[in-house]
Amino acid sequence: MRSLFSAVFSSVKILACRQSQVICRRFGGVRRYSSESSTSETRLDSAVAERFKLKRATHSVAQLYKDPNISSFISSSSSSSSTSSTPPKVVLHGWIDAAPRKLSKKLTFAILRGVQFDEGPQTIQLVQFGKEGDQTGALLSKMKQETPVCVEGTVARHEGTNEYEVKVISVTPLNHPHDLASQVRDAKEWDAKDRYLQLRTPQLQHALATRSKIAMSIRDQFIRQDNFIEVETPLLFKSTPEGAREFLVPSRANEGKFYALPQSPQQYKQLLIAGGVHRYFQIAKCFRDEDLRSDRQPEFTQVDLEMGFAGAEDVMDVVERCIIRLWREVKDIDLTAPIPRLTYLEAMSKYGIDKPDLRDAMQIIDLSKFAIATNHQDYSVFEILVYRPPAADSPIPTIAPAPEAYPTLRTPLMFTITDTNSATEWLQQCVQKFNLVFKSQSELGVIAQEIAFENDIRQGDIIYACTRQTMPFENPTPLGRQRLHVLYETGIHHSDTYSPVWIVDFPLFTPVEKSDVVSGHIEFDYDNLTATHHPFTMPALSSLPEITAAIEHDRQVDARVVIGQHYDLVLNGVEVGGGSARIHDSLLQRLILAKLLRIPNISTDPQIPDPLNPFAHLLTALEMGCPPHAGLALGFDRLCAIIVGADSIRDVIAFPKTQSGADPVVGSPSEVTDAALAVYHLNRRSSK
Amino acid sequence: MRSLFSAVFSSVKILACRQSQVICRRFGGVRRYSSESSTSETRLDSAVAERFKLKRATHSVAQLYKDPNISSFISSSSSSSSTSSTPPKVVLHGWIDAAPRKLSKKLTFAILRGVQFDEGPQTIQLVQFGKEGDQTGALLSKMKQETPVCVEGTVARHEGTNEYEVKVISVTPLNHPHDLASQVRDAKEWDAKDRYLQLRTPQLQHALATRSKIAMSIRDQFIRQDNFIEVETPLLFKSTPEGAREFLVPSRANEGKFYALPQSPQQYKQLLIAGGVHRYFQIAKCFRDEDLRSDRQPEFTQVDLEMGFAGAEDVMDVVERCIIRLWREVKDIDLTAPIPRLTYLEAMSKYGIDKPDLRDAMQIIDLSKFAIATNHQDYSVFEILVYRPPAADSPIPTIAPAPEAYPTLRTPLMFTITDTNSATEWLQQCVQKFNLVFKSQSELGVIAQEIAFENDIRQGDIIYACTRQTMPFENPTPLGRQRLHVLYETGIHHSDTYSPVWIVDFPLFTPVEKSDVVSGHIEFDYDNLTATHHPFTMPALSSLPEITAAIEHDRQVDARVVIGQHYDLVLNGVEVGGGSARIHDSLLQRLILAKLLRIPNISTDPQIPDPLNPFAHLLTALEMGCPPHAGLALGFDRLCAIIVGADSIRDVIAFPKTQSGADPVVGSPSEVTDAALAVYHLNRRSSK
Repeated sequence: MRSLFSAVFSSVKILACRQSQVICRRFGGVRRYSSESSTSETRLDSAVAERFKLKRATHSVAQLYKDPNISSFISSSSSSSSTSSTPPKVVLHGWIDAAPRKLSKKLTFAILRGVQFDEGPQTIQLVQFGKEGDQTGALLSKMKQETPVCVEGTVARHEGTNEYEVKVISVTPLNHPHDLASQVRDAKEWDAKDRYLQLRTPQLQHALATRSKIAMSIRDQFIRQDNFIEVETPLLFKSTPEGAREFLVPSRANEGKFYALPQSPQQYKQLLIAGGVHRYFQIAKCFRDEDLRSDRQPEFTQVDLEMGFAGAEDVMDVVERCIIRLWREVKDIDLTAPIPRLTYLEAMSKYGIDKPDLRDAMQIIDLSKFAIATNHQDYSVFEILVYRPPAADSPIPTIAPAPEAYPTLRTPLMFTITDTNSATEWLQQCVQKFNLVFKSQSELGVIAQEIAFENDIRQGDIIYACTRQTMPFENPTPLGRQRLHVLYETGIHHSDTYSPVWIVDFPLFTPVEKSDVVSGHIEFDYDNLTATHHPFTMPALSSLPEITAAIEHDRQVDARVVIGQHYDLVLNGVEVGGGSARIHDSLLQRLILAKLLRIPNISTDPQIPDPLNPFAHLLTALEMGCPPHAGLALGFDRLCAIIVGADSIRDVIAFPKTQSGADPVVGSPSEVTDAALAVYHLNRRSSK
Repeated sequence: MRSLFSAVFSSVKILACRQSQVICRRFGGVRRYSSESSTSETRLDSAVAERFKLKRATHSVAQLYKDPNISSFISSSSSSSSTSSTPPKVVLHGWIDAAPRKLSKKLTFAILRGVQFDEGPQTIQLVQFGKEGDQTGALLSKMKQETPVCVEGTVARHEGTNEYEVKVISVTPLNHPHDLASQVRDAKEWDAKDRYLQLRTPQLQHALATRSKIAMSIRDQFIRQDNFIEVETPLLFKSTPEGAREFLVPSRANEGKFYALPQSPQQYKQLLIAGGVHRYFQIAKCFRDEDLRSDRQPEFTQVDLEMGFAGAEDVMDVVERCIIRLWREVKDIDLTAPIPRLTYLEAMSKYGIDKPDLRDAMQIIDLSKFAIATNHQDYSVFEILVYRPPAADSPIPTIAPAPEAYPTLRTPLMFTITDTNSATEWLQQCVQKFNLVFKSQSELGVIAQEIAFENDIRQGDIIYACTRQTMPFENPTPLGRQRLHVLYETGIHHSDTYSPVWIVDFPLFTPVEKSDVVSGHIEFDYDNLTATHHPFTMPALSSLPEITAAIEHDRQVDARVVIGQHYDLVLNGVEVGGGSARIHDSLLQRLILAKLLRIPNISTDPQIPDPLNPFAHLLTALEMGCPPHAGLALGFDRLCAIIVGADSIRDVIAFPKTQSGADPVVGSPSEVTDAALAVYHLNRRSSK
């Protein structure tokens, strides 16, 4: 075999001999690298021949510890001085994890990092006796870190410990790694384009393995326990007028036409329900061509489900069981069942945000019973947040900054209660800023005392005060933002508790934010509504009179009172899922699309069908005897990140995109030729 | 509730009253529809109110038969005349499956088609007592086919049978179906745009449920039995020079740059192996923008896997176990293990194709020991196929037509052996057509006798004769095509046997077919090679000397002798999977890409890296200590189609695309505005 490979590579020696340097140079500008010249003249010749000498592994490292033959040998050899029994021979695969240490001319130690696919130890010490002159095989002492190897040897107890080690009979290097591979040990030190090196770290190995386990647990629950079927829906979908920006895919066969990559399988899953699929489920790829904020990816994964002949409660039941099982199976944690529920208004008034972090019980206090704010008609609720520092010298959380456009009136006031004066003074300042009107005729000091008494406000407490709308569309509210700020400054995100909550009774519609506002408050155009979640969400039955009245009188609905049958699953301040009961009555759907959301080309008179109606297929499907249905989608990447304790969803994705949407590993997106574009009937647009 | 909805829809009566007709008209040109006018004035008012009166189902139809309470009630009520025990009350969901039959003023029968998610009966008879005057609920007799309903009732035995029926207490229609929904009962009669109606048929319900079950079984095997992890790889990939045409996705954030949708996760999975993922697996979406031949889809699904520290045998082992388990679990069939193997050359010489249908034992007979053909130097093998009609009056299979460009010399000769004359005559004709040169000096008649004797050719047999290359790149060969033609004309495809086979030892390279050929034979340019499967396939170790010699002398390799470590899984003549051991040595990979496949911008001298090198990321990953690895991809759609016995993969895909790549249900692809294109820095190209 050796001579064969000598022949193979004799002609290419000149290439081989400088290969090592070259790779260094390629990475040279980016980071440190070893400058030692490798003995490449002979390297390929000998090493490549070895690269295919691969015996099957008998064990993973962890499996060694579970093998009864090995443990009985180990205990017999240690209990008696006679080592008459034959040590079991094993074959292991893995990488040289740390540079081998040559202890003497004859003795070398190294650490093998096994292939990581099971629980238990991942590394084991290798011990090789043998010196340079020996021709019996490869020398461990010559091997670089990150060399993939096949090791044959016998297992012994590592002296003075309960750990095993392997006495090497032979070790075969299966490839020759460049020095770069061994030079950093922390995933974050490698360049993003060397993602495959990052992936070798235990953290990312664990993250990918756990992600796989989570998906399997979810599938087992939905498919085997709850009788769902997994159905794949098309990724070459159609451009639709809803939601975020889409990726377009030009069609070669259909000149001038485009597919769009789906933002979710929403429409297809409703069509499946119309098609008699009783319980649909899919772990689906979705796409969103948005500017990538903090922790978003242009392609992401959703656990998507829909149930026919079902409503909100059915869906929440099923999802709740899935989540509870997941935590038990993957984290060995029993979440409290049932998962508590808050209405949107409760969440907004107690926590100031629709995805409250409930790991801390701190709540916002509504002071409407004492006073209302009158400096802006829409923001009449006067509320405070009280923080009690754990000790006198604890750091005081700062004020969370307001959005740039609303610096003054949407920033909370902040007070420290130090003495009797300041116990009234804070309220005095609120009167001035928020133009408070009190419900009682009492003096300010008395009212302040009442507030303090009722809410247990003491000396040393910090008060943050602001206003909100009665049905808040500002989300988070200033105090909601402040509450999160306080929680993070006091370290809530290091807690390893899990506090899931369902948020229900969302407003069905959200008014559009006005752009040219000088009032210092965020103002909304209540005549111009968007769907809070999506246009297919069923209104609460109790909201139908308002919808009816609005349509009857050709006016817009009052967005503050129309509730939708939507539910979000929130976990530690992260929205991990959202769903709704859907509209399955086509006329109601037509009226909401056309009259309230004012989407063009939707005829409410089906006698005049509009060929441009973007939802025609869905409306027709509803008209064919579609049963009531409800569903939900879980953000799978976020769910995985929470479970593995990662800061970012990037850490649970094998090949994430950067902020600019690039994949630095393969170099996508990339240039294509004009000729390739021409095939798709396209030209480049000159940039001005 | 009723009055609420009266209010809701009072304003829109005018729309509602003509809705039914309208929908008819929309479909009017396409198919039959009922012209009876519905009583829509009141329909929405009453029906919509009911649409949300949904109790949870207590059983599916099949579950009724498994419920011990029901069966004990049924047997007690039939065994004694006293029906003292209370009949169990049940709630069922489903559709009215056939138009209700009103047997008298008081008695109506109907069939309920339950929600289809478990094994067992899917339909049950409903019996309702009650007449028009009754105000106690909805009347079954008024319901159209395909009305989704919630039924409350008691279970009884259907007189004279072992089947159950439900005596209706109340039946609530949950939507009002258009007549169209009920007018055809066979999936093929509905228009493709009404896919959701097709999906309600038992065939497609079964196909989707089975597909889900197959995926789950495969995942269970790979993940839980064989320690694979499922890793999602990016769908926004990069344009590459290999293989079929890609879909491009313009990038908004990166002007002038494009993603491409992947044809397979091949490169990413090799990067995962370099990243220390030991056993990777994924049920992955893949894309191919080709003209859609017979049974292809622009987006399709692949069971994709890759194993580190592994070779071909490891992969074939794992896949074989998966397939055998699948057939046992889903079809209750034990496939013979191990799956037999044929080399490419064996398959081509015995069956004339690299994906032989082994449900029939018929083989092609190589007559090289008697004669060689000399009419074209490349096509020297003389071979025959012998068909024996089962009876004297059996139909005689015709000659399979040759490709249009090669009508004469690539069409087999066909003879019927009727008497002693014709037993020599056929060979005489072959001599003339193929310019046969015999190996013995014997007379033609003697040689014909020898051939007949050795191959048991008898009177009544049909002989098809033709030639092939010694290492055939013509695939199928004329006799391979003829064999399939004979098998299909004699009904092999109606057989329900399963004959899997591994095809191994493929040529690593395939010469390009010459275009301007007048010889009547398909001619190949042996200097111009493409990768038979893909450029990452590892050559057989025994082929390395030829590769070395070629590179050394700067010549092309002889494609007829260089074998690749590739393996295909073929089942009943369908290629269901293919894989290979990969090249994990970067220099060998560079040389093959640059010198033999002559792909531009691949430097064999890594000291001069080419910035345009499309495989730079992969080559670098190999250089970082990538272990040996091998993998495979199964065509999931084809696998599902074979298992459910569907003619086309369209029948196992929820929303397949048409031949032109369109989805008629949602109407994709569709027009987008110039403004939307501008965002992606693109213009329409005028088609002139």
